[in-house]
Amino acid sequence: MNRLIVKLIASFARRTIDGYLVTDAVNIAYLTGFPSADSWLIVSPKKCVYITDFRYVAQARAGLKNNITVVRYTRSIGDAVADTTRRLSIARLGFDERHLSVDDLKRLRRCMRGTARLVPANNMVEQVREIKTAAELRSMRAAVALNLRAYDFLRRIVKPRMTERSVLEQLEGFVRRNNARFSFEPIIASGPNSCFPHAVVTDRRIKDNDIILIDIGIDIGGYKSDLTRIFFLGKIPPLARKIYMHVCEAQQRAIVTIKPGTLACDIDKEARNYLKKHRLARFFGHSLGHGVGREVHEGPAISSQSTAVLAEGMVFTVEPAVYIPHRFGIRIEDVVLVTKHGCKVLSR
Amino acid sequence: MNRLIVKLIASFARRTIDGYLVTDAVNIAYLTGFPSADSWLIVSPKKCVYITDFRYVAQARAGLKNNITVVRYTRSIGDAVADTTRRLSIARLGFDERHLSVDDLKRLRRCMRGTARLVPANNMVEQVREIKTAAELRSMRAAVALNLRAYDFLRRIVKPRMTERSVLEQLEGFVRRNNARFSFEPIIASGPNSCFPHAVVTDRRIKDNDIILIDIGIDIGGYKSDLTRIFFLGKIPPLARKIYMHVCEAQQRAIVTIKPGTLACDIDKEARNYLKKHRLARFFGHSLGHGVGREVHEGPAISSQSTAVLAEGMVFTVEPAVYIPHRFGIRIEDVVLVTKHGCKVLSR
Repeated sequence: MNRLIVKLIASFARRTIDGYLVTDAVNIAYLTGFPSADSWLIVSPKKCVYITDFRYVAQARAGLKNNITVVRYTRSIGDAVADTTRRLSIARLGFDERHLSVDDLKRLRRCMRGTARLVPANNMVEQVREIKTAAELRSMRAAVALNLRAYDFLRRIVKPRMTERSVLEQLEGFVRRNNARFSFEPIIASGPNSCFPHAVVTDRRIKDNDIILIDIGIDIGGYKSDLTRIFFLGKIPPLARKIYMHVCEAQQRAIVTIKPGTLACDIDKEARNYLKKHRLARFFGHSLGHGVGREVHEGPAISSQSTAVLAEGMVFTVEPAVYIPHRFGIRIEDVVLVTKHGCKVLSR
Repeated sequence: MNRLIVKLIASFARRTIDGYLVTDAVNIAYLTGFPSADSWLIVSPKKCVYITDFRYVAQARAGLKNNITVVRYTRSIGDAVADTTRRLSIARLGFDERHLSVDDLKRLRRCMRGTARLVPANNMVEQVREIKTAAELRSMRAAVALNLRAYDFLRRIVKPRMTERSVLEQLEGFVRRNNARFSFEPIIASGPNSCFPHAVVTDRRIKDNDIILIDIGIDIGGYKSDLTRIFFLGKIPPLARKIYMHVCEAQQRAIVTIKPGTLACDIDKEARNYLKKHRLARFFGHSLGHGVGREVHEGPAISSQSTAVLAEGMVFTVEPAVYIPHRFGIRIEDVVLVTKHGCKVLSR
């Protein structure tokens, strides 16, 4: 078994389970290294079983290594889960309530009568995922590096009178030429569009002296980056300049507090308190950041309500922002790795 | 209220509900015409309410028409659902068990104590979606037309010694130049790779006399096509030729039975029985087809277990196949529209 699965199994005792049903495709791909669709994985100290159907069984048998057995289901996936737990003598099978629909659980319960008990145990794989391995960090650094090059490219080509959509097209070409893909639909929000935190690309024509907020994520080998930069075209309006400097400073103050042991909520507070002092906190409506890895948004949450404690190997965004309604928005987003004694900004 | 929502409300009585909670993003986009993320919709005869958060509220207010009120939630989406059902005096709120996680339902129940009762009512929006409107058919015809042109393009450029991946790259360029996108990762499966129904693109180099199975879907305006063609490069091996002719014939026999009132399971049987006569049915491990529209796979299911009865305006694939293990696979997939008295193959 690979180290990620061993780590997952090590957390079974605390949850009083002796088997775990993984139903989320990203979690399955993470644990097995094999891209997954419509398939489930049962992890137990004895054995791991990948349950799939006719469509994927041959590829799964060819692609899965590390002691993972492939079972092909014919009747229903629930029957195969019941059979497997019986064969592995699993008594308490954990599952993540967020990754199973009400309907799936109903069907599964019907199949599992007289076999293992289903025990809610959320966030178990995601917790393992929060600490990146060396191989994961290599992919993430590559994604961040290409993301930065994408901004260099945009700095050369973005000009007044282009539409947001034509900027997107050029950007798509750049990403394609570099054999990568986006990890989410890019945000290219010019002028007043930038005050929507999740703006969609429009046909708006960029004007002289516009502010453009660009938020891009790159996916390399299943690992994501997520960076936001602000472009000023021409003269920078004094208010925008002032706010830009404050957002930079808020980000910097947050970043210097990052090290193993810090509470995630305290990092958020650091940035928010700085903006509060300058009466800008009420224009900052979202949390300071989020973990990033196989998903653009994953643990740890960097928010005022987060209970996460930072640990070496965590990777997350730090993205303070100020959105002035109907005028403009400024967000600066970087990706940070928690190191042994502090942190490293991967996107500089 | 638009006609789709009126149609949905018309089915409330049969399910004994007086309100419906829509949690699936595709269903919300279908009913509102507005792209949705992390938002829910409550439909009631009095009013429709779109519940979203800080990130999307301004765009939702600008983009939603037709009497749909936007509510911004701050505490939790469940509290907003409870408030809304109270204000609209909803007593029995239907929801789709397939589109709500076990965790979401738990939280929602906590918020809704003393308000409406939550009533499982699956597949309600999907049933409305099965019958395409004229506007939807326009988008689907456009997607199918471009899909066919993509095959014309491939017929000109696919040559022995190209890799599957380089074919994909050329195809991506074509789709991009036509301002469209794929509705799923294309399958370009050459030689023995074609015997995997859901093959992934590899670096395999195409050989002389190879069989190539190509399955492409195009997305135009949120509507999908899904077509499969077989390319023969050079001489056609006699067995492949024979099987190709049988798969064509199986498809044709299925298609001529399609008209309003036909049982979907009977169409599947028609194709399967023909293949059975030629001892090929055991190499045809999936169902004959599936509805297509906003999703590549939607209702009606065209399978041996389907209980669907065909009706005018339904659109689905007909895709018989024969996969000879370790050798090759032949699948032919077209998209069919049920008309008043029969059907029309949209992809011819």
